Amino acid sequence: MEIEIIENVFKYNEAQASTNREIFKENNIVVFNLLSSPGAGKTSLILETLKRLKNRLNIGVVEGDISSTHDAMKIKEYIDEVVQINTGGTCHLNATMVAKAIEKLDLKDLDVLIIENVGNLICPVSFDLGEDFKVLVSSVSEGHDKPVKYPPIFVRSNLILLNKIDLLNGSDFDTSLFEGKVTELNPGVQIIKLSCKTGVGIDEWIKWLEARVSGKILNVREFSKNSK
Amino acid sequence: MEIEIIENVFKYNEAQASTNREIFKENNIVVFNLLSSPGAGKTSLILETLKRLKNRLNIGVVEGDISSTHDAMKIKEYIDEVVQINTGGTCHLNATMVAKAIEKLDLKDLDVLIIENVGNLICPVSFDLGEDFKVLVSSVSEGHDKPVKYPPIFVRSNLILLNKIDLLNGSDFDTSLFEGKVTELNPGVQIIKLSCKTGVGIDEWIKWLEARVSGKILNVREFSKNSK
Repeated sequence: MEIEIIENVFKYNEAQASTNREIFKENNIVVFNLLSSPGAGKTSLILETLKRLKNRLNIGVVEGDISSTHDAMKIKEYIDEVVQINTGGTCHLNATMVAKAIEKLDLKDLDVLIIENVGNLICPVSFDLGEDFKVLVSSVSEGHDKPVKYPPIFVRSNLILLNKIDLLNGSDFDTSLFEGKVTELNPGVQIIKLSCKTGVGIDEWIKWLEARVSGKILNVREFSKNSK
Repeated sequence: MEIEIIENVFKYNEAQASTNREIFKENNIVVFNLLSSPGAGKTSLILETLKRLKNRLNIGVVEGDISSTHDAMKIKEYIDEVVQINTGGTCHLNATMVAKAIEKLDLKDLDVLIIENVGNLICPVSFDLGEDFKVLVSSVSEGHDKPVKYPPIFVRSNLILLNKIDLLNGSDFDTSLFEGKVTELNPGVQIIKLSCKTGVGIDEWIKWLEARVSGKILNVREFSKNSK
């Protein structure tokens, strides 16, 4: 009986995620679902991204937290289109929460939506939100064994960012062990090493993101969005 | 209906946790439930603890992970009484998992049981395992905003360890903001700053742990355990 109910939860989420995906498609928005442990640097990465892209792309952010508006307030300093979801204790976002959040955004004008999931390496990966890409932020300070200990999120992410590489010096983090295990779990996935603190590698991440955006919508925009 | 089922899950867990607690009491074992984000240093702390205490106390460890025996193998180098629980994707330990795990330990000979929960700042705190104390390991690299963003686990822990203080130098971690928020959430809770890397503060943690052990069982042991 318990299994049946869990299946229903996932089925219901899938249906809502498909609806979200349709809405994003109609509005030519590329959507990134940002995943990580608590404190790996998702919010810092969003801030660095907004600094570099806010004049070139219209970006919206959905902030997921179990409580507080702490991160949303930081982001509000850069852009207006921010919505905070407080899950009230639930350890992941789901497609229904996102559906409600995006009602508050001006979707017609957005090119990109970044959804910052709840800090958690386990639960969020099981809930499709309707995103185009899952981006995992892992960090040097968490240790190189994270892919060994939390495989599903490494298997299912479309890009792995290794943040806080400024801490590599003097740490026992073994980059080749980390990369080897990631590649074993998710062959061909790109790993970008970066530091939100020093700025190293951020350009490569921006390039990756822009390529996804232009691949999906920039051509369309030439013909439609600019004429809205 | 969903709420009712969730209540049942919690009620069932509570009943099993009480049974575990009885078993621990009968065997004069003090039990610590170790909580943290992924990579905050739970396993490193256990290793440092074993190095210092394994000749003075009989310690058992239950290792919780969604998969792998990676951490249990490290611990096995120091002690024999280790059991690995693989939750198969579940984001927290529950009392039933622990009940099954401790069947494999020689409880009569143990003074202390350390349960390393799954790396997760959200879900584990809702599941009583029958422990005497919840110990939260937070780390400098996660940032000082963790108590703001994940309040319940800070509210319900009996001790807060701030690990990786070797990284304080050059970081923007604000210790007084962290301590202020922790104290607001959990007045009177002790915060021990330490580094498993440099060894700073470990003695204070050991002292805290030993005080809990002697408070609960050392006197009893004089009369019963030593005569077993």
